[in-house]
Amino acid sequence: MTERVGREFFTTRTVAEALAGFRPARRTPAEPVPLAQALRRVAAGRVTAPHPLPGFARSTVDGYAVRAADTYGTSDGLPGYLDVTGAVLMGTQPDVTVRPGTAVAMPTGGALPPGADAVVMIEYTAEVMPGTIEVVRPVAPGEGIVRADEDAAPGQILIPNGKALRPHDLAMLAAAGITTVSCHARPRVTIFSTGDEVVPPDTQALQPGQVRDATASALAALVADAGGAPALGGIVSDDPGALETALREALPASDVIVISAGSSVGARDETANAVARLGPPSIWCHGLAIKPGKPTLLAECGIGDDGAPGVPVIGLPGNPRSALVVFRLVGMPVVRLVGGCASAPPEPSTRARLARDLASATGRLDVVQVKVSDGVATPIFGLSALLSVLTEADGYLIVPEEATGLDAGTEVDVVLYA
Amino acid sequence: MTERVGREFFTTRTVAEALAGFRPARRTPAEPVPLAQALRRVAAGRVTAPHPLPGFARSTVDGYAVRAADTYGTSDGLPGYLDVTGAVLMGTQPDVTVRPGTAVAMPTGGALPPGADAVVMIEYTAEVMPGTIEVVRPVAPGEGIVRADEDAAPGQILIPNGKALRPHDLAMLAAAGITTVSCHARPRVTIFSTGDEVVPPDTQALQPGQVRDATASALAALVADAGGAPALGGIVSDDPGALETALREALPASDVIVISAGSSVGARDETANAVARLGPPSIWCHGLAIKPGKPTLLAECGIGDDGAPGVPVIGLPGNPRSALVVFRLVGMPVVRLVGGCASAPPEPSTRARLARDLASATGRLDVVQVKVSDGVATPIFGLSALLSVLTEADGYLIVPEEATGLDAGTEVDVVLYA
Repeated sequence: MTERVGREFFTTRTVAEALAGFRPARRTPAEPVPLAQALRRVAAGRVTAPHPLPGFARSTVDGYAVRAADTYGTSDGLPGYLDVTGAVLMGTQPDVTVRPGTAVAMPTGGALPPGADAVVMIEYTAEVMPGTIEVVRPVAPGEGIVRADEDAAPGQILIPNGKALRPHDLAMLAAAGITTVSCHARPRVTIFSTGDEVVPPDTQALQPGQVRDATASALAALVADAGGAPALGGIVSDDPGALETALREALPASDVIVISAGSSVGARDETANAVARLGPPSIWCHGLAIKPGKPTLLAECGIGDDGAPGVPVIGLPGNPRSALVVFRLVGMPVVRLVGGCASAPPEPSTRARLARDLASATGRLDVVQVKVSDGVATPIFGLSALLSVLTEADGYLIVPEEATGLDAGTEVDVVLYA
Repeated sequence: MTERVGREFFTTRTVAEALAGFRPARRTPAEPVPLAQALRRVAAGRVTAPHPLPGFARSTVDGYAVRAADTYGTSDGLPGYLDVTGAVLMGTQPDVTVRPGTAVAMPTGGALPPGADAVVMIEYTAEVMPGTIEVVRPVAPGEGIVRADEDAAPGQILIPNGKALRPHDLAMLAAAGITTVSCHARPRVTIFSTGDEVVPPDTQALQPGQVRDATASALAALVADAGGAPALGGIVSDDPGALETALREALPASDVIVISAGSSVGARDETANAVARLGPPSIWCHGLAIKPGKPTLLAECGIGDDGAPGVPVIGLPGNPRSALVVFRLVGMPVVRLVGGCASAPPEPSTRARLARDLASATGRLDVVQVKVSDGVATPIFGLSALLSVLTEADGYLIVPEEATGLDAGTEVDVVLYA
């Protein structure tokens, strides 16, 4: 939809349309990653088990390896008696075979000796004389052991394509002897700040009218959380052409470009113009039906003559708070997509009752910052220019596009900041 | 409580007792951390605003700075007329004062000129002749602006002591010109694996009875998630004395020591003995009322003669799955505590209905791995020796100590793996 707001023409999309429709084709290449650096990295291709795991039948208890049939019918009143013909040592191949009427001492995790099909727990045995035990409880075949391929059969998928590796996925890879994983390279995300009023964060004495660049540091953190490698492109003045030049220079070394635009209408127009001049076909939406965060630009730049995928460009509103809200909702999914991640990780959240009525406009998604205490979510109101609204919040709730508001007492899902 | 299980004597504690009672006094020292590396780092001391933020009254809209009184009573039918005496440029100090009957053009984010107390949005104005605008809607004093100290007053706490910094906290620090933060050093966590059967993950051809060290890689990842700096201490044989020697060498460079013990009873005893020999007073519990994970050791080692805090030692069960379950529940909080973190971050979770009955013993906390689909949590059963139970799970649920089980259909909280 195209509408006129103030002096601007927007091609406005809903957040749902943006998430479903803005799906740049660019993907980062695969690279080998050592296991010690692979946490949360995204697998490029599936990983399968090279051999059975654990690889040999193992005892899961301390006890005696036996033939199960030798224990049938035993009880406290009617023990069975077995000759102990050896002991298995941890980490070694058993050098003794379990024959009918015999047992072999087993530590937990030891390899099952040939001939045995079960391990009876030490608690159900007693050494009645040197070399002889009594067994007071029967075991079934397979009891007290894991099979050689019970954790994974050869060729079984250990890690599906596009999965972000969790701590215990690393354990499974280590168990399989896979110490290097093919992962998507981290998307290189270049972050620009624009605005004549914006100065670097390490500026000690501000001139009147100047503000420090608050957004870039937080955007870099969100990029890292989405699996990207952030690079700060610095502050670009509102001078026409400066942004275009900066973008052109950044394109070859970027998989995604993020621009936190100046807050004035002129600065926003300049962002759109600069992006448009970078090449076909490009601007997917200019204006998102979200509050805060409407002046958001989604585009692809520098699509090659050969149709090679371009670089997604995310133009954010000038207010730091609006920029961070939009980047969390719409930008992080783009970084994950380019980085090959098949699905977003689960987010911390909680159910809470809304402390007061919230008004909203139909067709617009509202992101409301809240404090949560004792199951009650209290909205924090304040201008979108205020960062403190964000830093004081425990999380945010969403008033969906179709709602005209939410009544006090409504049960809402609050996404919690971690 | 002390009970006999098999050949062992345990001083068993509940998980709740461990979390409340095992509170080592050790804390890592403060160190300066640049903002770009400060994400999730823990503030050592509170951080306050050095000056008001944003530091000057700013416009929040595109429009005209005015004296609000000049707009009172205006409407579409009865516009007010004001002389435009100048324009504010972004990032500069206004060189014009707003006097009665005048207005100054303002970009969003510009500094409010002296004399003005409000900004009227451009949408409610029109330039009726060069140098004169009409205003068709009244504004109240303070409308269209943020005050000079509205985001933070001087001395206001921006970051409380012990807080792990979130992306938007970095934005607030950058806005305040704070580019280096005093943070607790990451706790140095040395991870040992023990067991004669355990070989390094990069061992390609296993001898029968050998298993690769699966636990250490995943523990290192969980340590990093808890804010620690993991160091792999390697694999220690079950030889008496070897672990004691390894622990003694690691103590000076460790803030926490984690040992994934061999799975056999003998290996577990050896861990307890080695820890006990390291010095007073030490073993806090040997045995946790949790399934899986009972053979867990919590201790403090090497407490100095001067009463200087010792190094917490966490002895984990030999089964990788049990070790990871226990470390997540009991070990990560210890790492956070030593790293000065005042509260654990929220975890991803979801409510789900239990697909089937779960049995449990009173007095024991059960950690049950589950798959979650369409709001239904389906337990994954399998021996604690199996890692696949963990890697196939979407998360876990807890059957609390006081319960004898949970009925199918019960609504449960599932902590989701991210």
